[in-house]
Amino acid sequence: MTAARTQGPVRIVGAGLLGASIGLALRALGVDVILADISPASVRLAVDYGAGRAAAAGDAPKLVIVCVPPDVVAQTVAAELATYPEALVTDVASVKLAPLGELRAMGADISRYVGSHPMAGRERGGAIAARADLFVGRPWVIANHDDISDRRAADTVLESLALDLGAAPVELDAAEHDRSVALVSHVPQVISSLLATRLVDASDAAVGLAGQGLRDTTRIAGSQPELWVQILGANSEQVVGILERYRDDLDGVIAALATPSAPGALRVVAESLARGNAGVARIPGKHGIAKHFSTLVVLVDDVPGQLARLLTEIGSIGVNVEDLRLEHSPGAQFGLAEISVVPEIEHHLIAELNERGWKIAGASE
Amino acid sequence: MTAARTQGPVRIVGAGLLGASIGLALRALGVDVILADISPASVRLAVDYGAGRAAAAGDAPKLVIVCVPPDVVAQTVAAELATYPEALVTDVASVKLAPLGELRAMGADISRYVGSHPMAGRERGGAIAARADLFVGRPWVIANHDDISDRRAADTVLESLALDLGAAPVELDAAEHDRSVALVSHVPQVISSLLATRLVDASDAAVGLAGQGLRDTTRIAGSQPELWVQILGANSEQVVGILERYRDDLDGVIAALATPSAPGALRVVAESLARGNAGVARIPGKHGIAKHFSTLVVLVDDVPGQLARLLTEIGSIGVNVEDLRLEHSPGAQFGLAEISVVPEIEHHLIAELNERGWKIAGASE
Repeated sequence: MTAARTQGPVRIVGAGLLGASIGLALRALGVDVILADISPASVRLAVDYGAGRAAAAGDAPKLVIVCVPPDVVAQTVAAELATYPEALVTDVASVKLAPLGELRAMGADISRYVGSHPMAGRERGGAIAARADLFVGRPWVIANHDDISDRRAADTVLESLALDLGAAPVELDAAEHDRSVALVSHVPQVISSLLATRLVDASDAAVGLAGQGLRDTTRIAGSQPELWVQILGANSEQVVGILERYRDDLDGVIAALATPSAPGALRVVAESLARGNAGVARIPGKHGIAKHFSTLVVLVDDVPGQLARLLTEIGSIGVNVEDLRLEHSPGAQFGLAEISVVPEIEHHLIAELNERGWKIAGASE
Repeated sequence: MTAARTQGPVRIVGAGLLGASIGLALRALGVDVILADISPASVRLAVDYGAGRAAAAGDAPKLVIVCVPPDVVAQTVAAELATYPEALVTDVASVKLAPLGELRAMGADISRYVGSHPMAGRERGGAIAARADLFVGRPWVIANHDDISDRRAADTVLESLALDLGAAPVELDAAEHDRSVALVSHVPQVISSLLATRLVDASDAAVGLAGQGLRDTTRIAGSQPELWVQILGANSEQVVGILERYRDDLDGVIAALATPSAPGALRVVAESLARGNAGVARIPGKHGIAKHFSTLVVLVDDVPGQLARLLTEIGSIGVNVEDLRLEHSPGAQFGLAEISVVPEIEHHLIAELNERGWKIAGASE
């Protein structure tokens, strides 16, 4: 058993997916984990899964992790701060300024509160979906603020927690966190949902022409409204600010396309598209480095094992697949595997795959 | 050699990616293919690649396929109609009403013109990137209009062409085609480019938190502005109509989030998100059927061959992978493979993978 950096007991309030996943990971390191939830059945289930033990009289947690829905985070954190005056308290909500403001308004002792935001993506499913490695490799934001009494000590506790869970700790102040997630997570959700909304009344012929571009841009529109309305409501100021600038740009494109033959109109459109190129290039690639990969598209028969055979052969050629995407065409009995590799070996790989009888359907983008 | 449905000679005007790819596929079926291009070097290159032969005096093509950039489609089609009064003429441009209107305005004999739109996605690269199987499994829209003299005969020629290329012929009238691609292709391009634009001035901390959602929604923002400004300009009326309705929805969400505590505000947001759910459910899945798959996330070490090993084992368990997506976390030495399978076998697969030592990082969405 690897030694835990985190010192227990750790009390987890909210035995859902995130709480139970943290519990499972800490238990695997031998940490004493206490589970609490407004629902006794949820606690029993999470205990059954091995995520910790039920609370007992005399528990004296060193760290409390609040894993409850966004709208009850502040009141739960305040209650824990009051009940455990020796403990550091954190939470895992997607928004950090709003609960901090609520806690200040309540007069809570926030000198022992530091917010967290593990960027673990899937926030549904309860203890039954919990995994000890849910946070592995993901950023874990530690949201600092000015009223923390011993910031260095608090950061150390939360960094230790993040590292114990396999996550990458990232320190940001609460306002910067909220601005950042508004940009990279909350606004994309709104934009994607509104785009997908346009499909509700689409003809079957139109959606029948849908390709990977539409699928990608609307994938997150499948997210849970119940959760997202809480997140968007709690970070509304940051989200609105970005959406307003988005709307300004949209107005410019609409005006230009409304009179495409007017002088300068298509230039407005071209510059918008070019700024999009510049923006997407800001997104870090694999291993944190923005990098351009070459992409091959290979035909794969739609039977079990074909994709594996392709990847095995690519591996035996000595090439590492940087990214992979499988695309199916409606009605087709095969798929197209988009394989990203470092540009230097693309030619070699194409030649080797051709030699092995694979059909290359294109070298893309 | 499979017998060609298409009767030659076929004349292809524009020896770029699409023209040369069509040429390669038809040549493989033994069809006499004549290549023409404003650039003699492009013709020589495409001939060298085996996409056809150069034009000769006395050529009498039965079918002319115009594969030139959007802004010169109409004038090229008109010239071909005039030069070859016995030929059916088609083109492969992404927009169909605009060239039809231009042809009418020019007084061209459009009784022998039927537009095509192969939904083959990647429209760059020239003959050097051409592939005989570029169109395999993709929809090939045949854009009908009222002035075709023998619609049945024309449709048969174009259906034969599509089938010879492995594509799935879809008949739509030109207006319905343009409405459809505005919705499923042109508007998503604008929406994605404008979203990516918001990242241009983002902090490094913010883009460092980017996850798969942002990557998916902005992927097509990397497209070529030069090409897209032509497409958007040529289909501006349809695109503007949809963008205006999008903006109305966006205004509603901005207003609601500007005063999130006002009565009914969050309901507006929740309903927008729910409509997004309904819209994304309209997109057909694999084999043309909208279907929900279960998704597992499996940890894969970042060394050649690991993903292949995983897929080989899934194949040996007898499970077909419906969709696959590889995700890398910044700084991590492994990836997360999102594997979609039919829901009925999810439990079985998880158990089998666990038994083989794979780490399941989550059962998603």
